[in-house]
Amino acid sequence: MRISELASQTGVPVATLKYYLREGLLHGGVSTSATRATYDGTHVARVHLIRALTESGGLSIAGVRRVVRALDAPPPSWHDLLGEAQATLMEQPDGCAEAPSREGGTVGGEDPARELLARVGWQFDPQCPAVDQLRQALLTAERAGVLPDGESLVDYAGALARVAEVDVRNVPRDPAAALEFVVVGTVLLEPVLRALRLLAQQDASARRFATGGSQSR
Amino acid sequence: MRISELASQTGVPVATLKYYLREGLLHGGVSTSATRATYDGTHVARVHLIRALTESGGLSIAGVRRVVRALDAPPPSWHDLLGEAQATLMEQPDGCAEAPSREGGTVGGEDPARELLARVGWQFDPQCPAVDQLRQALLTAERAGVLPDGESLVDYAGALARVAEVDVRNVPRDPAAALEFVVVGTVLLEPVLRALRLLAQQDASARRFATGGSQSR
Repeated sequence: MRISELASQTGVPVATLKYYLREGLLHGGVSTSATRATYDGTHVARVHLIRALTESGGLSIAGVRRVVRALDAPPPSWHDLLGEAQATLMEQPDGCAEAPSREGGTVGGEDPARELLARVGWQFDPQCPAVDQLRQALLTAERAGVLPDGESLVDYAGALARVAEVDVRNVPRDPAAALEFVVVGTVLLEPVLRALRLLAQQDASARRFATGGSQSR
Repeated sequence: MRISELASQTGVPVATLKYYLREGLLHGGVSTSATRATYDGTHVARVHLIRALTESGGLSIAGVRRVVRALDAPPPSWHDLLGEAQATLMEQPDGCAEAPSREGGTVGGEDPARELLARVGWQFDPQCPAVDQLRQALLTAERAGVLPDGESLVDYAGALARVAEVDVRNVPRDPAAALEFVVVGTVLLEPVLRALRLLAQQDASARRFATGGSQSR
């Protein structure tokens, strides 16, 4: 199909498609003349992915570029892939090591992130940007006076472990499909989880605080 | 203290503080002359909150304005407050109703959000923007080919119910403190939960996929 058809099929203007091509987010079509190229179903799928990542996922253009580059050259093993996927999500230059160690989780204990991770006993790469992100997030919550107590943090971690179990259980075995699933799934399920948290708060508060009425149980 | 001291104490430039004052994010100081005002600890706390909401929470200036207005005029009951807090978080004009009904959760069933919520049996307000957000997020995930199956969605919901239990358990009983806690806690714990999800994925994948080595169990 021509670029105008790609535009009508995806609902994305031609000018925007050309921007995606220039920015290296969308792979080029097959040239049929000096000024024309044809596009196929892979382009339609990629355009949908770019829109989903930018609009629902809130990724920057640089972030999307990192995602599509990772998708176009997936690492060979599942575990390298998780590191690559997480680095992509963090928009960090370095991935996480392919062999997370139990030691990594228990070294230190001076900062709240290490302390929490040691307490739950997870295996993780201590160099992984997610550790630093966790530390920053805990410090910010502390400064704002909303840092939960240690018991609550362990409970949050337990709940997120259940989320991660479902994440990992559904990952395809093929590395290329797995990378796409981890990156896209992690980004695009965030809004699902956020909405579920708010709705679950309503349910929890209705059960805990609602005063009378047949609707409370 | 003078505005220059407020700046040095919070690490936020005077020009930025004046911007916060103009935008109505920061309450004015007590005027001591036509061009001078004094500020106190409430201003320091508010500036820290504004920084946390914009930087860690990723809220827009309009979103922060909504949060601080809600904090300055908290609703009288806990349940109104949750609706107000959630509407603030969604940056939506209408809050959620104060009396979530069980019926609301089970009416319909034509869309994936209603279907999921009916399946888990939560009490929620069907008019609440979180329902629409969930629907959009599920549709986006479906279009991108990463929508989990129904069983997995129920498992995600179960995990987020645990998150919400901890959220609600820690809410202070005083409405004003509760509103601040819900709004600020929901926003500022998002990065904590996101980082925990990535680290939990590492642990889950290490246990599920790691091939040999003493580090896997």
